[in-house]
Amino acid sequence: MEQKIILKESDIPRQWYNLSADLPTPLLPPLGPDGKPITPDMLAPVFPMNLIEQEVSTERWIDIPQEILGILYGWRPSPLKRAVYLEKHLKTPAHIYYKDESYSPPGSHKPNTAVAQAWYNKEFGIEKLTTETGAGQWGSALAFACKLLGLKCKVFMVRISYDQKPFRKIMMQVWDAECVPSPSNQTNAGRKVLQESPDTPGSLGIAISEAIEEAVTDKNGKTRYSLGSVLNHVLLHQTIIGLEAKKQLEIAGEKLPDIIIGCAGGGSNFAGLAFPFVLDKINGADIKIIPTEPEACPTMTRAPFAYDFGDTACTTPLLAMYTLGHAFVPPPIHAGGLRYHGMAPLVCQAIVEGLLEPRAYHQNKCYEAALTWAGTEGAICAPETSHAVATVIDEAVKAREEGKEKVILFNYSGHGLMDLTGYDAFLSGKLTDYSLPDEELEKFTADLKALPKAQTRKSGKW
Amino acid sequence: MEQKIILKESDIPRQWYNLSADLPTPLLPPLGPDGKPITPDMLAPVFPMNLIEQEVSTERWIDIPQEILGILYGWRPSPLKRAVYLEKHLKTPAHIYYKDESYSPPGSHKPNTAVAQAWYNKEFGIEKLTTETGAGQWGSALAFACKLLGLKCKVFMVRISYDQKPFRKIMMQVWDAECVPSPSNQTNAGRKVLQESPDTPGSLGIAISEAIEEAVTDKNGKTRYSLGSVLNHVLLHQTIIGLEAKKQLEIAGEKLPDIIIGCAGGGSNFAGLAFPFVLDKINGADIKIIPTEPEACPTMTRAPFAYDFGDTACTTPLLAMYTLGHAFVPPPIHAGGLRYHGMAPLVCQAIVEGLLEPRAYHQNKCYEAALTWAGTEGAICAPETSHAVATVIDEAVKAREEGKEKVILFNYSGHGLMDLTGYDAFLSGKLTDYSLPDEELEKFTADLKALPKAQTRKSGKW
Repeated sequence: MEQKIILKESDIPRQWYNLSADLPTPLLPPLGPDGKPITPDMLAPVFPMNLIEQEVSTERWIDIPQEILGILYGWRPSPLKRAVYLEKHLKTPAHIYYKDESYSPPGSHKPNTAVAQAWYNKEFGIEKLTTETGAGQWGSALAFACKLLGLKCKVFMVRISYDQKPFRKIMMQVWDAECVPSPSNQTNAGRKVLQESPDTPGSLGIAISEAIEEAVTDKNGKTRYSLGSVLNHVLLHQTIIGLEAKKQLEIAGEKLPDIIIGCAGGGSNFAGLAFPFVLDKINGADIKIIPTEPEACPTMTRAPFAYDFGDTACTTPLLAMYTLGHAFVPPPIHAGGLRYHGMAPLVCQAIVEGLLEPRAYHQNKCYEAALTWAGTEGAICAPETSHAVATVIDEAVKAREEGKEKVILFNYSGHGLMDLTGYDAFLSGKLTDYSLPDEELEKFTADLKALPKAQTRKSGKW
Repeated sequence: MEQKIILKESDIPRQWYNLSADLPTPLLPPLGPDGKPITPDMLAPVFPMNLIEQEVSTERWIDIPQEILGILYGWRPSPLKRAVYLEKHLKTPAHIYYKDESYSPPGSHKPNTAVAQAWYNKEFGIEKLTTETGAGQWGSALAFACKLLGLKCKVFMVRISYDQKPFRKIMMQVWDAECVPSPSNQTNAGRKVLQESPDTPGSLGIAISEAIEEAVTDKNGKTRYSLGSVLNHVLLHQTIIGLEAKKQLEIAGEKLPDIIIGCAGGGSNFAGLAFPFVLDKINGADIKIIPTEPEACPTMTRAPFAYDFGDTACTTPLLAMYTLGHAFVPPPIHAGGLRYHGMAPLVCQAIVEGLLEPRAYHQNKCYEAALTWAGTEGAICAPETSHAVATVIDEAVKAREEGKEKVILFNYSGHGLMDLTGYDAFLSGKLTDYSLPDEELEKFTADLKALPKAQTRKSGKW
C-alpha cells in the first residue's frame, strides 16, 4: 500500500462544488445599511461581476477554467497522505488521512482561491487587486497569484505584524506586491485613525476598510478588492481539496470517511475539504464533520447566530453568521488565521442545519499535538492547522478506546515554517491559554440586538 | 502533457548508485596525520562501521533498506516538474525540468542522507548523533531524522547564526534536538577558543571540532558524528534524486538530458542529481554537466586540486579535493551552504576527469534569477538553489539563440522561506558581489604545499 495517494493532473476535478445548491434551508441574504437585501449591482464597485455571480449562484457545479488549473498544477492535485507513523504512535485502529495543502509556494491552501480570484478579475478587465492581511498568509497568497497572472497587487498589512513579522512582507515583495502598513496615510480611513491614535498597532478591521477604499476610489475603475475567506465564492474555490480527496480515498480503497476535520477561522480551508462530503451527509451518509476553533475566539461554539458586519469599521454588508461581535478583539493567540470574529455564512448555515459539530481547543493542547505530529509524521504544521491535528488525535484515541477502525480525514492547511515563534513560546512554557469570559461575550455581542435579526427555519438560537 | 511527473512509491529506486565503481581513475585515499592512507578502523570512533563500509565501497549499486524508504515516502519520490512558465517567459525551445527537493519537512534535499545516516547508526547500536551546522539547514535535517528514528541529536551551531537566525534553531528544538551555540564550554575545543576570544562569532571549523570531540569522548561508545555533505556515503544517499529523475524523464518521453545543473557547496545535492547521469557520460553520452558555485567561494573554478583538511582546526583526515585552503574565510554571502573551502572528493575527481564543467556566479545575478523564477514558476528558492537557477536561465537563453530544443535538468535543492533576509537585501539594493583576489587565493592555499601532494593520473594541476 502507498502512504501517499497522488492523482495525475489529468484526474484533477474540473468543477467546483457549490453547497448553496444543496443546503436544506437557503442562506439568508446579505443586507445593506438599510436592512434590505443587497443586490449584485451594489457589490460591483468592490468585486468583478463574474465573481459576484459565483457569490450568489445556486448552481451545484461550476466549471474551473483551464488556465486556473494550469497554475494550480504547480502543486495540485495535492497528495492525500496517510499518517501511518502517527497511527502507530497512537496505537489506533483508525486510518488517518490528510490532504497536504502546504505544498503551494506560499505554503497553505490560500492560493486555491487567490489564483481563481486573480484570474476572474483579469478576465473582467481588472488590473489591480487590493486586500488586507494580518500575519501575512493571505496577503502573500494574493501577491503570488497576481504576479503569476500579471496583475498589480496592494496589500494593507496590520502595522504590528508589518513591524514584527517581516518575513511574509518580504515574500509579498518578492512577488512584486506593494505592501504598506495599516493604518496608512494613503486612504481617508487610514488617515482618520492615524490622526486619532498615531501609535495604533492597527487591526484587520481598519486594514479591510483601507483596502476597500483603495479599490472603490480608483477613478479608472480598474481596481477591485479581494477577500481570502468567509465569502461563498472563496469557499467554492477551495472545494477542489475535498473533491480531490474523494477520488483519492477511492483509490486507497476506502469508502466515505467516518470523521472529517478542519480548523476554521473564516472557514475556507475547512469548507474546502468538508463541503463535498456535507453533500453526502445531506444525502444520508453517517459522517461526523468537525470544524475546530480556538477557545480564545469561540465563534461557532459559543457565539450567537446573528446579522453582523464583516469588519470592525462596519463598512461591509451584514452577513448572517455566528459572530462574537464586530468589535470583538481576540487575544493574541499564535493562530492568527483563527482570530476572526465571524465565520463564513455557508459554514454557519450548515451548523444551524445540524450538519457540523464544531469544537474548540486551547492553544497549548494544539501545540502539544503539533509536536506529536512533528515527531511522528515529521512536518511542522501551522498554528492554525494544529487545531485540526489536536482534534484528529482525540478522535483517533477514541477510535482506539472503542476498538473501531474509523476512517479520519483532515485538512493539513499549511506549514508552520513562518510561524516558529509560537513553537518557541510553547517550548519555553510561555504560552497562555485564554477562555472568553461570559461577560465579555455578552458585552461584544450586545450591539447585535440593534441589527436585523437572523432567523432561519431551523435556527431559533437568537 | 502533465507539468509534473510523479512516480508511485512502488516505483522508487531500491538501490543507490556509487560513482566510485565507475570513475576512470580511482579516488585518492584519505590520509592520516602521518601522511599514510587511513584505514576504516581509524574512522570507527567517529562513524559507525556500516557507514564506513559505504564510504570505502566500490560496489556500483547499494541496496536501500526498506525502513529508510518508509520514511522517505513522506515526500519521495519527489516530483519532476517542467518549468513551463519559465520556458514561456524566456521564449526558449529548451525543455526545462527540475527535481523539487523542497518538499521534505526541513525543506531541502538534506534529509535524504540524514534519514539514511540516522538509520545506519541506529542499526549499529548508536544512541546519539552529533553534528555541526552553520545557518541550520543540515542541523535541522539531522534533528528531523533522529527524532523520527528515536536517536538523540546534539547540534553545535555557529554562534553568530545561533544568535541571528533563531528560526532553524527552533525547528531543531521542535524535533527535540539539543542545539548549542559554538564555541561552547562543553568541549575542550570550544573552551580553548572561548578562553582566547570570548566574543568570537564562531565558525564551521570550530563547530566540527566540537561535534567530533563530543562524539569520540562518549565513554559508553554510543555516540557518533554525522556530516551532511562532502563524504562518499553522503553523496551516495543523494543519488536517489538522479535515479528517480531518470525514470521520470523516460515517462515524460524525453531521452537523456543535454544539460544537467546543480549548485555545489560540499557537493551533495549536485552529485545526487548528476552522478547517475555521469555514468551515462562515462559510457559515451553527450551531456554537459555543470556544478555551479559562488564567485565569492570559487573552489571548483579557481582553487588547486590538493590534499587538505576538511575543517579549519585540522582534525579531519586529509582529502584530495579542490580547496581554497582550510583557513579560508569566505565572505558573508547569503548562500551559507555554498561557503565551504573544499568540495566532495568524488565531485573533484569527476572534474579532474573532465566529466564536469564547473561555473561560478555572483550573488546579485543569482537573486535576479531567483526573482524571475518566483515570478514565473511561483516558488521562492533557497539562495543556494538560485545559483542553479541562474545557470539554467543562461543555458535556456543559449538554447534559444542556437535554436536548439535542448533538455535541461536541474536540482531544485530547497526553498528559501527561511532565508528571506537575503531577498530583502537584494530588493533594497544592499547586496554586494565579492570576487576573490588572486593574492588572497594564493595566501590561503600557500599552506597546502607543505601537505602531501594530490597527483592523479589526469590531474597534473598541482
